[in-house]
Amino acid sequence: MVTALEFPPLEVGDAGLSALARGVIGSEILKIASEIRAMKAKGAQICNLTVGDFDPAYFPIPAELCEGTRAALAEGHTNYPPSDGVLVLREALVRFYERELGLKYPLESVLVAGGARPLLYGAYRTLIDPGDVAVYPVPSWNNNHYAYLSGARAVEIPVSAASNFFPTADDFRPHISTARLLLINSPLNPTGTVIAKDELRRIAELVLEENRRRQAENLRPVFLVYDQVYWMLTHGEARHETPVSLVPEIAPYAILLDALSKSFCATGMRVGWGFMPPAVRRRMADILGHVGAWAPKAEQVATAALLDAPDAMHTFLSGAKAKVKERLDALFAGFSAMKREGLPVDAIAPQGAIYLSARFDWMGKTIRGRTIQTNDEIRKVLLEEAGLAVVPFQAFGLREENGWFRLSVGAVSMDDIQAAFPRLRALMSG
Amino acid sequence: MVTALEFPPLEVGDAGLSALARGVIGSEILKIASEIRAMKAKGAQICNLTVGDFDPAYFPIPAELCEGTRAALAEGHTNYPPSDGVLVLREALVRFYERELGLKYPLESVLVAGGARPLLYGAYRTLIDPGDVAVYPVPSWNNNHYAYLSGARAVEIPVSAASNFFPTADDFRPHISTARLLLINSPLNPTGTVIAKDELRRIAELVLEENRRRQAENLRPVFLVYDQVYWMLTHGEARHETPVSLVPEIAPYAILLDALSKSFCATGMRVGWGFMPPAVRRRMADILGHVGAWAPKAEQVATAALLDAPDAMHTFLSGAKAKVKERLDALFAGFSAMKREGLPVDAIAPQGAIYLSARFDWMGKTIRGRTIQTNDEIRKVLLEEAGLAVVPFQAFGLREENGWFRLSVGAVSMDDIQAAFPRLRALMSG
Repeated sequence: MVTALEFPPLEVGDAGLSALARGVIGSEILKIASEIRAMKAKGAQICNLTVGDFDPAYFPIPAELCEGTRAALAEGHTNYPPSDGVLVLREALVRFYERELGLKYPLESVLVAGGARPLLYGAYRTLIDPGDVAVYPVPSWNNNHYAYLSGARAVEIPVSAASNFFPTADDFRPHISTARLLLINSPLNPTGTVIAKDELRRIAELVLEENRRRQAENLRPVFLVYDQVYWMLTHGEARHETPVSLVPEIAPYAILLDALSKSFCATGMRVGWGFMPPAVRRRMADILGHVGAWAPKAEQVATAALLDAPDAMHTFLSGAKAKVKERLDALFAGFSAMKREGLPVDAIAPQGAIYLSARFDWMGKTIRGRTIQTNDEIRKVLLEEAGLAVVPFQAFGLREENGWFRLSVGAVSMDDIQAAFPRLRALMSG
Repeated sequence: MVTALEFPPLEVGDAGLSALARGVIGSEILKIASEIRAMKAKGAQICNLTVGDFDPAYFPIPAELCEGTRAALAEGHTNYPPSDGVLVLREALVRFYERELGLKYPLESVLVAGGARPLLYGAYRTLIDPGDVAVYPVPSWNNNHYAYLSGARAVEIPVSAASNFFPTADDFRPHISTARLLLINSPLNPTGTVIAKDELRRIAELVLEENRRRQAENLRPVFLVYDQVYWMLTHGEARHETPVSLVPEIAPYAILLDALSKSFCATGMRVGWGFMPPAVRRRMADILGHVGAWAPKAEQVATAALLDAPDAMHTFLSGAKAKVKERLDALFAGFSAMKREGLPVDAIAPQGAIYLSARFDWMGKTIRGRTIQTNDEIRKVLLEEAGLAVVPFQAFGLREENGWFRLSVGAVSMDDIQAAFPRLRALMSG
C-alpha cells in the first residue's frame, strides 16, 4: 500500500523553523545557474561563464586520479576513512607542501575534509564566538554566509580594481585591534587576480605585531585565514605567495585552505585540506568530524598517490592551465578590442584561477529599451539579449553597483567564447 | 628553501579558540579505536567489536555500486554535483521509498548529503535555536554532540533493557509541550534493538496531537527526527516501521534520515539522504550547501542505479544480512551459554543493525585484582585481559554505570568471535 504524503505550503512550514535557518541565504550563483539551465532547456544559445566549475568534456581530471580512485574502490577502500583523513593522504600532503611551497608543517597540522568549503566553515566555528569580528574584503567568496552561520560580526572592506581587488595592510589596520579573523583568498574568486607579495608580507607582519601586543596582555590572538584553493593556477607573470613563507613566525596564527577541486578539475570528488596550528586542527577535526563533512575514502587514497607523483602532477597542470589561459586570453582580448573601440567595457588581464574580471559600464544607460541601474539588470540584459551568462560581484558580497562581473571559463569551449562576442558587440553597438 | 614551522604547545594554542570549539568533545568511539590500533600494532590478538563499520574483506560493497562508481568516474562525473544531490539520485530515492516503504514523497522532500551524519547535524541547525529543547533517549548516537553544537537544551531519557532500550510515548509525554525536537533511531545504534510498531505509532500520535494544539495557538511545531540508517538490516522476526507509514498526517513534522553507508557496507563512499517536509528541506539544503557536506558525484550516480535495480539490491542485502546475523548469533549464543552457566553476563537477541547489546554485571566485583566501579574499567579489563574490544553505552550518552556494552560485528570474522570466547571464559571463571 502506498501512502501519498501531503505538506503545507512552503511559507507555512518555514514559520516553524529555527531563526538561523530562516535567515540563511542560499548560494546566489546556484540560483543563476538554475535560471540558465531552464533557458538552455528551451534551446537558447548561451555562453555560460557563471559556474566556478569544469566541464569534464574540456577539463577531465588527471588520468592518475581517475584510475587511482577506480583501483582504490576495487581494492576495497570502501569503509570509513578516519574522519580527519587517511594517514597516507595526510603524510603525502606534508611532503607536497614541503616540496612545492617550501613549508615544512608537522603531520598534526594537516586536516582533510570534503572540500575546502567545510574547512572555511570550520575555521569560523573554531575561532568565532557570536559577536567576534571577522574582517574580509568584498567581493570575496561566501564569507558573508560563514559570518552569518557562525554569528560573527562582519567587517567588510570594499576593494576595487585600483588595488587589484585586494585589501592592503592599511585597509586592515583600523580593524586589527578588534579582529578575531582576517580572511584573504588568492588567487581570488571572483576576480582572477593575485595578491602582491609585498602587500601580503605587510599584512602578515601586521597580524604578527598585533599578536605580540595581545600576548603581552594575555588576549586571544587574531588569525589569518588564507584560502589558496587556486594556487596552482597562476598565469603569465603572476606568482603565488603564502603568508607563512613570507613571515614564518605567523604560522601559529595562520590557516591555509586548499583542495583537489580546482587545481585538478575535480570539484565532484570532494577532497580538501587545510594546514593550521595543531591546536586549531585538533578542535576543528572534532567539529567537522561531528558535522560529517568527510572526504570519500577511495578519492583520498588516489589523491595521495597523485600528490606523490610530481611529474604526472605537473604535466597535468601544464595542460589544464594552458586550456584555462587560452580561454581567459580570448575573453580578455575580446574585451580589450571593444574597449579600444570606445565601447564602455573593461577587463583585467588574467593572473590566476579560472576567472576574468570584466566591467560593463552601463549604469544610467538605456540598453534595448531598459534603463540600467543595477548589476543584476546588466546581468539579465547580457543573458537575454546576448546569451552571455555572467555573475555580478554582488553575488560575492559587494554592495556597490559598479558593473563588475566574474567570468568563469571552466565550463566553456573556445567556440562558445568566440561565438559570444558578435552577439555582445551587436548588443553594445545597437 | 624549506621553512620548518614551529608551534606553541596545544594547551597554549587552545586558549585562543572559540568557546564552542573548546567545549566540543570528539568521538569517544574513535578514541577507543585508536587505542586498539596501537595494541594491534604491538601484536596483540584482539577481537575488535568497537567500530560501527565494515571490514571490506568480509563485507565488500555491492558489485553494482563498485562498478557503477568506476564507470561514472570514467564517464566524467567528476565535476560539481548540485549541492543537494544529483537529480537522478533524488528521483531514484523517491521511487525507492515508494517501492520499499510505501511512502510517496514529492521530489522536493529529498535531500542528499555526504552521509547521514550531516543531515542529523542539519536537522538540529534547521530546527533548533539556542535554548530550544531536544528530547532523546540515552543511549543513542551522537545526540549529545549535536545538542551541544546547536545550543539545544538536551532532555535525556535514560532507557533500559526493560523497554528494549526504546523510549515510550509516556516517556516523551512530560516533555512534549516544551520540546522542539524528539529524536529516535531504529534499528538502534548502539543496542541493535528495533522499536515496537505500536509504541512508535503512539509516539507519532503524541506528536500529531501536540502539533494540533500548537497550531491552534499559533506556536512552532515539534518535529520528530527518525534516524533509520539501519532499516534494511533487520534480523529474525523484527520488522522495520516508519512513523510516517503508521501516522501519515505526521509527515509535515517528520524527518527521516538514511544512507548508503550501513545497508550497503559503504561507509567510506559518503552518500546519505533524508526525506522531510519541503519547507525544512529547502533551508537545510542551504545550510548544508554552505557547510560543504556534499556527497561525491560519481558515487551518487552509482547509488541511483543500484536503488533502481531492486533484484540486485535485495540479492546483495540477503547475503550481507546473513553474514551479519551469523556473527550476531554466534555472539549471542556464546553469551547465552555463559549466562546459563551462572556467569554474570547477559545479552539481547539480535533484532537489527550490526550490534549486539551485552552486559557484564561486574560492578563492585574484583576481576584479576581490579575492583570494578565503572563501565570503562570493565572495558579495559576485557581489552587487556581477554583481547575483547567493546564500547560502553557511556560513549552513547548513558550516565548510569550498569555494565552494558555495544558489540559491533562488521569488522570481525567468525574465527575472531570463536577465538574470543575461550579467553573471555577464562577471564570470567578465573
